[in-house]
Amino acid sequence: MIPSNIRLDGDTLIILDQTKLPGEEVYLEISHREQLFEAISKLRVRGAPAIGIAAAYGYYLCAKADRDQADFFRRMDDAERYLASSRPTAVNLFWALSRMRQTLKRNALLPRGELIEKLRLEAVAIQEEDIKNNLRMSEHALPLLKDGMGVLTHCNAGPLATSCYGTALGPLLLAKERGMNIHVFADETRPLLQGARLTAYELMKAGVDVTLICDNMANHVMREGYISAVFIGCDRAVRNGDAANKIGSSGLAVLAKRYGIPFYMFAPLSTVDMETENGRGIRIEQRDPSEVTELYFKKRMAPEGVKVLNPAFDVVEHELITGIVTEEGVITAPFEENFRKAFERAKAGKVEENA
Amino acid sequence: MIPSNIRLDGDTLIILDQTKLPGEEVYLEISHREQLFEAISKLRVRGAPAIGIAAAYGYYLCAKADRDQADFFRRMDDAERYLASSRPTAVNLFWALSRMRQTLKRNALLPRGELIEKLRLEAVAIQEEDIKNNLRMSEHALPLLKDGMGVLTHCNAGPLATSCYGTALGPLLLAKERGMNIHVFADETRPLLQGARLTAYELMKAGVDVTLICDNMANHVMREGYISAVFIGCDRAVRNGDAANKIGSSGLAVLAKRYGIPFYMFAPLSTVDMETENGRGIRIEQRDPSEVTELYFKKRMAPEGVKVLNPAFDVVEHELITGIVTEEGVITAPFEENFRKAFERAKAGKVEENA
Repeated sequence: MIPSNIRLDGDTLIILDQTKLPGEEVYLEISHREQLFEAISKLRVRGAPAIGIAAAYGYYLCAKADRDQADFFRRMDDAERYLASSRPTAVNLFWALSRMRQTLKRNALLPRGELIEKLRLEAVAIQEEDIKNNLRMSEHALPLLKDGMGVLTHCNAGPLATSCYGTALGPLLLAKERGMNIHVFADETRPLLQGARLTAYELMKAGVDVTLICDNMANHVMREGYISAVFIGCDRAVRNGDAANKIGSSGLAVLAKRYGIPFYMFAPLSTVDMETENGRGIRIEQRDPSEVTELYFKKRMAPEGVKVLNPAFDVVEHELITGIVTEEGVITAPFEENFRKAFERAKAGKVEENA
Repeated sequence: MIPSNIRLDGDTLIILDQTKLPGEEVYLEISHREQLFEAISKLRVRGAPAIGIAAAYGYYLCAKADRDQADFFRRMDDAERYLASSRPTAVNLFWALSRMRQTLKRNALLPRGELIEKLRLEAVAIQEEDIKNNLRMSEHALPLLKDGMGVLTHCNAGPLATSCYGTALGPLLLAKERGMNIHVFADETRPLLQGARLTAYELMKAGVDVTLICDNMANHVMREGYISAVFIGCDRAVRNGDAANKIGSSGLAVLAKRYGIPFYMFAPLSTVDMETENGRGIRIEQRDPSEVTELYFKKRMAPEGVKVLNPAFDVVEHELITGIVTEEGVITAPFEENFRKAFERAKAGKVEENA
């Protein structure tokens, strides 16, 4: 059940390099934390859930590679801080690392070999839960779809961004399996073109009807009546329901509102950050200007020396969000209250599972 | 006073190839109608006013190259139809060709040499009027600006799109000359990146402060309060005030409305088409999918065979437009009535000029 985009092979983490898609399928072999940091910060592995999974395996590999007794726990705290600094916006990264730390602390008294094995099992559990959650989210969202419907998506929230099905693309892939034809419009998603390169690639591979558009064509396709719903991922949802996702998401929400098109974001509960009150508290990563001026393939198309803004993420105000799809169902306003209920359901479910 | 982007040199039309900017300044030497058709359809010369000027010179060159007496007028009608078919959306193309045809018909009885000279003078007049109109539009729009203000623009409506100053960029360049500092945010404008390649280039050359953003960052900069007005060009305004411009324009108008940001389009009266009732009557050019899938520099970044929408233009509904800046002042709602008044003022002005 371990899918191919992130996979552990002994002391090596195998990651599909998403920056090379769709042209080439290149797998990276990662054995040092510096390689993983580079892979996350350069978006070789990207998508909030996928980053969390990769970081969890990375944490395990750091622990396994550590041969000394003295200061082991301090060095693991350093490793956590180092990996956590690879990208600032997606909350799954911190969430997954925190789960790994708690596992470490909980098993601190075990012999080192057993402790390391506990960490491996925890990383595997994080990945397996992600797969299960993706499927549950897809099932919850399926009733939002009708045969023949048009859905707009942005960036990539598919299998590559997670480890199976994906978040926002999950129900679209599941619908295809159940014999429904959904017409997906994929924003290319500048600057790094995840929509053109990854979403179009994944949906075409699965036989889902997909039409690629430039980001600035979204209003056109909405107004022309092609779009009945917007399905996008989420990098961090906060207590009041404000939710960060790829730059461009907030504009789509404003446009969808104008045409009365339902706007859904997809966030496993690991993406929901109840510690942050509202969107103003989310740190937005500013990335390198060359992503904008040199395009994806490193050919310059803007004048040398031009000033550039390059925020990687965007915060969608909660009042523009129709619902946030989680593994515990579709959360609607009031978000804070309904997030709390979802967390309670998740906790009750786990207790039941373990009973 | 003849600027460098479009210029007649004997029997040759010299055009700056905009597709090579900002990397190279390449001048095309055009002596056959097929070369001009290619230059317009491939956007080597682009911008509604610039297309009209180039087509007028092209019409003159067709007439000059024609050595036969028999069927001369029929062949000129063919030439007009051929040149008019190079791009379907911008109305200046049809307007300029129609002016040339009327000049031809009006002087039909003159000896051929004199007739040809009348056509040359008419083409030069079209270009000189454009320069004058750009300056008048810039002066009309200048009171909309304040020192230190942020203005968002889209695509390119600068000197390259016209023959001097430009339409939407005109007041920004004029403001600089008058010692004001305007902070311009330029959408890169996918798929062909006219904002990144041309607007950033022109503004930087003129010393105007410009920040390049991806199209999908417009909502971000508006919401953050960086933008106090939107200034964009116009390829065709119609009777009710609906106005076509580069794809992405209508979405910007929706976003500007949300934040109460004034939204101005810039259209010399040659761009105003009173024959068409509303935006639904404007034919939107669909361009080649490879512009989206292969980016500007012909490197593929979407999967082979992916479906693509590539509408080149967009219609902005009149109720989202604060004003349309013309050489006869800033037109506001009710547009039909106020367009008529502007045309009357223009006519009266011409009569006075000729008196």
